[in-house]
Amino acid sequence: MQIVTGGVLAPKGYKAGSVAAGIKKKKLDMTVLVSEEPATVAGAYTTNVVKAAPVLWDQDITRADHCVRAVVVNSGNANACTGAQGVQDVQATANHVAQQLNIEQKEVLVCSTGVIGVPLVMDTVLKGASDCLAHLQTGATAATDAATAICTTDTFSKEIAVEIEIDGTTIRIGGMAKGSGMIHPNMATMLSFITTDATVEKAYLQKLLGTTVIDSYNMISVDGDTSTNDTVLVLANGTSKAPAVTAGSASEDAFVKAFRYVHTELAKMIVQDGEGAGKFIEVTVKGAQTKEDARIMARSIISSNLVKTAFFGSDANWGRIICAMGYSGATFDPNLVSITFVSEAGMIVVLQEGTPLKFDENLAKKILQENIISVVITVGSGSVEATAWGCDLSYEYVRINGDYRS
Amino acid sequence: MQIVTGGVLAPKGYKAGSVAAGIKKKKLDMTVLVSEEPATVAGAYTTNVVKAAPVLWDQDITRADHCVRAVVVNSGNANACTGAQGVQDVQATANHVAQQLNIEQKEVLVCSTGVIGVPLVMDTVLKGASDCLAHLQTGATAATDAATAICTTDTFSKEIAVEIEIDGTTIRIGGMAKGSGMIHPNMATMLSFITTDATVEKAYLQKLLGTTVIDSYNMISVDGDTSTNDTVLVLANGTSKAPAVTAGSASEDAFVKAFRYVHTELAKMIVQDGEGAGKFIEVTVKGAQTKEDARIMARSIISSNLVKTAFFGSDANWGRIICAMGYSGATFDPNLVSITFVSEAGMIVVLQEGTPLKFDENLAKKILQENIISVVITVGSGSVEATAWGCDLSYEYVRINGDYRS
Repeated sequence: MQIVTGGVLAPKGYKAGSVAAGIKKKKLDMTVLVSEEPATVAGAYTTNVVKAAPVLWDQDITRADHCVRAVVVNSGNANACTGAQGVQDVQATANHVAQQLNIEQKEVLVCSTGVIGVPLVMDTVLKGASDCLAHLQTGATAATDAATAICTTDTFSKEIAVEIEIDGTTIRIGGMAKGSGMIHPNMATMLSFITTDATVEKAYLQKLLGTTVIDSYNMISVDGDTSTNDTVLVLANGTSKAPAVTAGSASEDAFVKAFRYVHTELAKMIVQDGEGAGKFIEVTVKGAQTKEDARIMARSIISSNLVKTAFFGSDANWGRIICAMGYSGATFDPNLVSITFVSEAGMIVVLQEGTPLKFDENLAKKILQENIISVVITVGSGSVEATAWGCDLSYEYVRINGDYRS
Repeated sequence: MQIVTGGVLAPKGYKAGSVAAGIKKKKLDMTVLVSEEPATVAGAYTTNVVKAAPVLWDQDITRADHCVRAVVVNSGNANACTGAQGVQDVQATANHVAQQLNIEQKEVLVCSTGVIGVPLVMDTVLKGASDCLAHLQTGATAATDAATAICTTDTFSKEIAVEIEIDGTTIRIGGMAKGSGMIHPNMATMLSFITTDATVEKAYLQKLLGTTVIDSYNMISVDGDTSTNDTVLVLANGTSKAPAVTAGSASEDAFVKAFRYVHTELAKMIVQDGEGAGKFIEVTVKGAQTKEDARIMARSIISSNLVKTAFFGSDANWGRIICAMGYSGATFDPNLVSITFVSEAGMIVVLQEGTPLKFDENLAKKILQENIISVVITVGSGSVEATAWGCDLSYEYVRINGDYRS
């Protein structure tokens, strides 16, 4: 597996056009991603009961058994809690793009991110979509523009692409994502778009996405609030002409590995750019009885406000870590737990099989003052492990989310 | 029901002695509460898998079928994650107090709150307990001293007492509690102690406490982290000589009402004094299908970091509220939800049966700049309601919990 440039446009047969349509004040705020050939599609969505209108639209499409050709995304307005108007607006957007591309409405996916409860200004959105379609391009610059257009208060655009061989034919998987942010103090949204020129059968793709989501996006947390708009879409257009990836095919392992890598790296970028985040925290729980126990404990730790503020303060506060494991719902014996902090500045064991160790506070502080910190925990109940990724909780998080809407 | 002074010593037959033993630098940090007569006892404890040594001790006592005479509490050290030494230290403390009171070790409950993972300095604790016993007193001042001695970074002591009549005899219920705080950046603990001179049979008392906890302490949240030490203890010593309170007795309703009032008021004081809290938020969810749905939604709202930072910023951000309801796990139709903000400055409806209303932002801001704010939500699925209490998430919370241990 090789990492390549070009993000979501690295695979063959995809183009994107992005513009500043005027939903945000100035910045790029719309993109249309088009596949030259009909692409099989898989989707994963927020579990929130309150689902934004575009989420409902995309769910219907990815549940049905047909291919797609385009994805329209706007940032600046989530089109969530907008009632019947919101549903109409999604349809109108899809219809508009379909007409211009001479395809069917049901081949157009729609995603939105931004403020909740405010209807879209449809003149702006439709003109923006037309402008995007007038500027469809391939290449790394166009991909980065697309990755930028889907951002809200993200501080960097999030892209990745990899290349593998399938029976002698090169295929690529590319992706872009946006994380937690807002242009108006309101709900953030996680959006992630993956393209590939591999040929992948729909049912297989959907199943693979389902298992991948569990260990990538579901293992990150910025603030514990599950958005109304979270969406992951995968398009596979087969343009590489490589043999189809399917259960038991020769290329399955390599494809799955590359697919998971792309999703996991995008998920990690999202927390790295979490609102107000200064530090990236990786928590690995080893020696758990079940995979689910390992996941639950790792996720509970990175979601704890007390753990997150301790990282903000560079405090080797292992008591908060074991406490968060304790209320996670997982099964373990506190007397067998060991906790180690690791970063570029060194490594320090603070708890060894339930016994607190006297440790060098200065070294601990140095380790925790780094921007990338790993916590390795062994619980001694079994042999399964899981990793979760999070960030610290800073003054800046409170400032971003506490500022009165202006 | 009448509110009276005297806190935990308002009921007959209780004394307390409190001292600055030296576990904290200067402040009162130990108290011993003694019942003249053997008291029936009920307890409710943290659900955290990691339970502090005193929690394990108290659980054994309140599960057994005997009365108790004393409760020893220290603040400044939680005696949590202290292994076998911690268990021995609890026993030694109970034994020490039992010998001096000429009672059995199993009649002495022990509670601790403060830093995790540091063994108690037992010379200090045992001398402190002796000093407390040498200063046992009745009266409002002694009660306030006790309520102060159990505090960590609480900014005020939390006491309440009420009086009702049972068949012509006056009985009282008194209580004290401590909330979230720390003397060292580490886990906070919720402790609550209730006394009554009513006669209450043990099984009845335990059952009543169980149902009371669900709608009082379990409906508050400061930061979503469940402590290793949370403990609620109720002592009923029968000193009033009033007829026993039991299922179906004439006085049952009045007693239950007063009992629940005392617990709920203490729970509310705890969030009012939550770390860094500037605002007290009451969230009532009405019209739910089941009581559990109403509770889950109300609790999800007051636990959301995004909702809490919006209150900090006086932002009428109803999108975050309905979003937190949406991921709570409760069943409801977003199209039937109405949301109203209420405070001394007025009242404003922001969402009416799923439709966002245009509202006066200036009035909304005034309402949310108050220190006590109610949110009333109707979901239109049924006729059940529940209330939860929380606080805002401020810079001060991050400062308190992010400061490096010094």
